Amino acid sequence: MPTIDEIARLCNVSKTTVSRVLNNHPYVSKEKRDMILKAINELDYTPNYLARNFRRNKTQTIALSVPSIDHPFFAQLIKGVSHEALSKNYKVIVFQTFYDKQTELELLELLKHKEVDGIILGTLENEWDQISPFLKYGPILLCNEYHHSADITIIGYDEFEAAYMGVVHLIERGHKKIGFCFDTPYSEAQCQRKEGYLKALQDYNLHHRNEWIFGEMFNIEDGFRVFHKIKDLKDRPSAIFTGNDQVAAGIIKQAIKNGFHVPEDLAVIGFDNQLICQVVTPTITTIDIPIIELGQQAVLKIIEYISGNTSLNRNIIKLPTSLIIREST
Amino acid sequence: MPTIDEIARLCNVSKTTVSRVLNNHPYVSKEKRDMILKAINELDYTPNYLARNFRRNKTQTIALSVPSIDHPFFAQLIKGVSHEALSKNYKVIVFQTFYDKQTELELLELLKHKEVDGIILGTLENEWDQISPFLKYGPILLCNEYHHSADITIIGYDEFEAAYMGVVHLIERGHKKIGFCFDTPYSEAQCQRKEGYLKALQDYNLHHRNEWIFGEMFNIEDGFRVFHKIKDLKDRPSAIFTGNDQVAAGIIKQAIKNGFHVPEDLAVIGFDNQLICQVVTPTITTIDIPIIELGQQAVLKIIEYISGNTSLNRNIIKLPTSLIIREST
Repeated sequence: MPTIDEIARLCNVSKTTVSRVLNNHPYVSKEKRDMILKAINELDYTPNYLARNFRRNKTQTIALSVPSIDHPFFAQLIKGVSHEALSKNYKVIVFQTFYDKQTELELLELLKHKEVDGIILGTLENEWDQISPFLKYGPILLCNEYHHSADITIIGYDEFEAAYMGVVHLIERGHKKIGFCFDTPYSEAQCQRKEGYLKALQDYNLHHRNEWIFGEMFNIEDGFRVFHKIKDLKDRPSAIFTGNDQVAAGIIKQAIKNGFHVPEDLAVIGFDNQLICQVVTPTITTIDIPIIELGQQAVLKIIEYISGNTSLNRNIIKLPTSLIIREST
Repeated sequence: MPTIDEIARLCNVSKTTVSRVLNNHPYVSKEKRDMILKAINELDYTPNYLARNFRRNKTQTIALSVPSIDHPFFAQLIKGVSHEALSKNYKVIVFQTFYDKQTELELLELLKHKEVDGIILGTLENEWDQISPFLKYGPILLCNEYHHSADITIIGYDEFEAAYMGVVHLIERGHKKIGFCFDTPYSEAQCQRKEGYLKALQDYNLHHRNEWIFGEMFNIEDGFRVFHKIKDLKDRPSAIFTGNDQVAAGIIKQAIKNGFHVPEDLAVIGFDNQLICQVVTPTITTIDIPIIELGQQAVLKIIEYISGNTSLNRNIIKLPTSLIIREST
């Protein structure tokens, strides 16, 4: 691989002159510039970006954490983030935490060691006081996850409102016994959804039972399992807010296999508006989340911070959600 | 942020001594070592990996290309690659080509500019002679995609065999008119599948019609569309090899909506064995691909090349596939 030295020697100019041409610096005569560009081209010289990054102390790389890449919600979030980042000339490292605290801390080390310029946390495994010390190494923001005291930008949607809207829809369909699923109990986003569920019941003078609330619900298999839990209850809910289209699809599949009619015996509402809602029979009523836009906004914000144009402070951005009514309710 | 200079000054030792301690070099007395480590700890000194990478001319980063991140097949491939890479202390940059030639060339520039140490191509948009010149900058391998003349490692599965197996299954179920879907015509992997389809028909003295073969089939919506094409044919196939679980799910959904019985009026076989096969009614017969293992093997191989332990040459690794029989056939 040729070096700047060789190009300088070949053209009989100084290294500084070659460097000026490479960086589009004005004070080089047209004649010299053309000669140097010709040499660069002929020798197939390539600037080594490791050197450039070292000089600028920038990597042009953003890290994005997700709990698991192959969940459709996170796959779409990655798509939104990657697409926007590439258009802004940033690369994206996707980091799976597998819901593990230690793995999340390893991600934060990337920022400490200047392997990335900023981090978008699409999931939150640790307490905030474990994460905030890393803010001195570079910008971090939360996307799709909340924290009550984090002094950073948080980009998401109104989880309380979304759950409230879904549960009110079930109530308006005549249901009085409504169950609720969530994933991890330590997620503030999930807690806000649960508050939305409870507030909707309260506003319509309905009650919940603790046995109608199911945690650790992530995927289709969890939906299979929770259906059997519901079936075995003495006092069953007649409708369930699943918080997840995959879980909804799993519940519906098992319900039908076991002779239940959906929505007559059990109404089911999903969350995210994934394509799976349209192929399951019956099709799934759900809450639409602007996932791609979430990812795009997160990238624009983190680049603002990386460029130093804005200082970090608490700033909550909530994108709108909407109810998509289909056959399952 | 403290520097090596400051630590050296504080401890009254040379920079070389500090550097030796940082790199676990043996020739430093225990006393000095302890003092330096204490200073490093107290000053919260962090090695800047940009500097380290610049010195070593390595990024500890692998790029993986996929046509689109939010397709379940590629989401799982990313999962397999990321998991294995992290365990080997490599980061992964996921690059979406969106089936675009120019975007793929931009990815290859990352290798040229030393922004990544190696590239796993999970998709192939350009002719090989566009790609091979980049091999002089670092290792590239193909995963889940073939090329007849590429002198590199190719990790995949037997596409011919997988399609042959699926089509023979349909023939054994009594079908004589069998359709075929594929995605891009320029993919050699897709061409191998088509050969498997044609060979199975030939071995059983069956014929195909060109109007039973459908290209550009990628997702659920394509499945919706192709069902209507099939429905409108005068001479319809009674079974279809879709090459894709999403397409299969879309066809089945529309078929049932239009009063067809599956598999009686139209038998459908998917490809990949995604979870969606288990929630659609009827459940989908499909071909199981060891996707996670594909990703893992690709990482192990590319790291071998990056470490310089093996020289690049043509090497085809084919992982086994299997038929999963469900209700749709």
